[in-house]
Amino acid sequence: MAGTIDQRLAELAIVLPKAAAPAANYLPFVVTGNLVFVAGQLPTWNGEIKYLGKLGENLSLDEGYQAARLCALNLIAQVREAAAGDLDRVRRVVKLTGYVNTTADFSDQPKVINGASELMAEIFGENGHHARVAVGCSSLPLGVAVEVDGIFEVA
Amino acid sequence: MAGTIDQRLAELAIVLPKAAAPAANYLPFVVTGNLVFVAGQLPTWNGEIKYLGKLGENLSLDEGYQAARLCALNLIAQVREAAAGDLDRVRRVVKLTGYVNTTADFSDQPKVINGASELMAEIFGENGHHARVAVGCSSLPLGVAVEVDGIFEVA
Amino acid sequence: MAGTIDQRLAELAIVLPKAAAPAANYLPFVVTGNLVFVAGQLPTWNGEIKYLGKLGENLSLDEGYQAARLCALNLIAQVREAAAGDLDRVRRVVKLTGYVNTTADFSDQPKVINGASELMAEIFGENGHHARVAVGCSSLPLGVAVEVDGIFEVA
Repeated sequence: MAGTIDQRLAELAIVLPKAAAPAANYLPFVVTGNLVFVAGQLPTWNGEIKYLGKLGENLSLDEGYQAARLCALNLIAQVREAAAGDLDRVRRVVKLTGYVNTTADFSDQPKVINGASELMAEIFGENGHHARVAVGCSSLPLGVAVEVDGIFEVA
Repeated sequence: MAGTIDQRLAELAIVLPKAAAPAANYLPFVVTGNLVFVAGQLPTWNGEIKYLGKLGENLSLDEGYQAARLCALNLIAQVREAAAGDLDRVRRVVKLTGYVNTTADFSDQPKVINGASELMAEIFGENGHHARVAVGCSSLPLGVAVEVDGIFEVA
Repeated sequence: MAGTIDQRLAELAIVLPKAAAPAANYLPFVVTGNLVFVAGQLPTWNGEIKYLGKLGENLSLDEGYQAARLCALNLIAQVREAAAGDLDRVRRVVKLTGYVNTTADFSDQPKVINGASELMAEIFGENGHHARVAVGCSSLPLGVAVEVDGIFEVA
């Protein structure tokens, strides 16, 4: 029997990517008390990078938005692992930190990270509303456009 | 009857800005357990941006310090909301993360973020002393000079 | 009688630096509940900076790795203080955030921050595996190559 959030994912026709496997010396998430700290997620689909580049240089605002949305899909895939497959156990998206690969004069980080924030609201409703930070970075791992990490409260 | 912290604010002649209203898909703060995660605050006064620019280029160290102090005033305004108006419920400023809009060779991030740290100490005394991080960013939302987020412990 | 982690440090011939003293208005760590939030640590040895510069410009990947490792040694020195000298009370390294001073086209942040992650695994074993983020910064305090902060769970 599918859970409430699984049903919403189906209604929205949203498919989650596979949760990336743990790297050698760090983990995709750590649970402490009721909080899940999820590692920085990149805009990848089942391990393949989708958005390389720099906002303000060679990527449009919409591409940045889609990159942030894809990071958020990977966050949710990790949280599903952390919750033993049951996304209904997610009580709250607590905080997202959005790192945007930018030139020195880019200033639309919030519009980029909306791609992650709006996905959380679509999927988790009120419980998906979170505190957040959006900043510009001189560079990001592998040259990706966006990286997003997250803190979640899980029952 | 004014609380202890409200009295200190009055003695210091510090007026807090209005807490910014929630944005569409994210919130200015989320409470989980005893912790309040406050979203990244910009150097605004009642919504009006006060410090645009880049440290190392077109802003002085003192302007950066004032920008960080204004971010911190906004953090406290949000925490007051989170504590239902009663700042005496703030048991501890746990951590501040200060993001400074900088050129590639700026290295005085700590002196900039002192503007936030010293305000917390002025207002909350010992309980205002916190862990912190100060880093340089290639760019920040709307072109502001500084962004600061915070974690607070509330009774 | 040396604790388990102290013995491992001795076996690995790892000596921790002195924990940096608290600065005026912020602290090297704050404990809230079971969590220790440690302030951003720089690549210093007993207060002396060891790795200045920028990845992608004037520092090799190995120098970046060593800088991150030194930041991590300072994190552990602070956690030892937080745990009243007993590193066996560290139940988990929860999360590390690694800030790397980079040019606009550097993309090996993960390999740099592995210097911190691998040290945690060496010293704490399974409990040393953590969630993490690695990003590029336009600049860092004092011109250092790397800054790392951390969240730890302590019994």
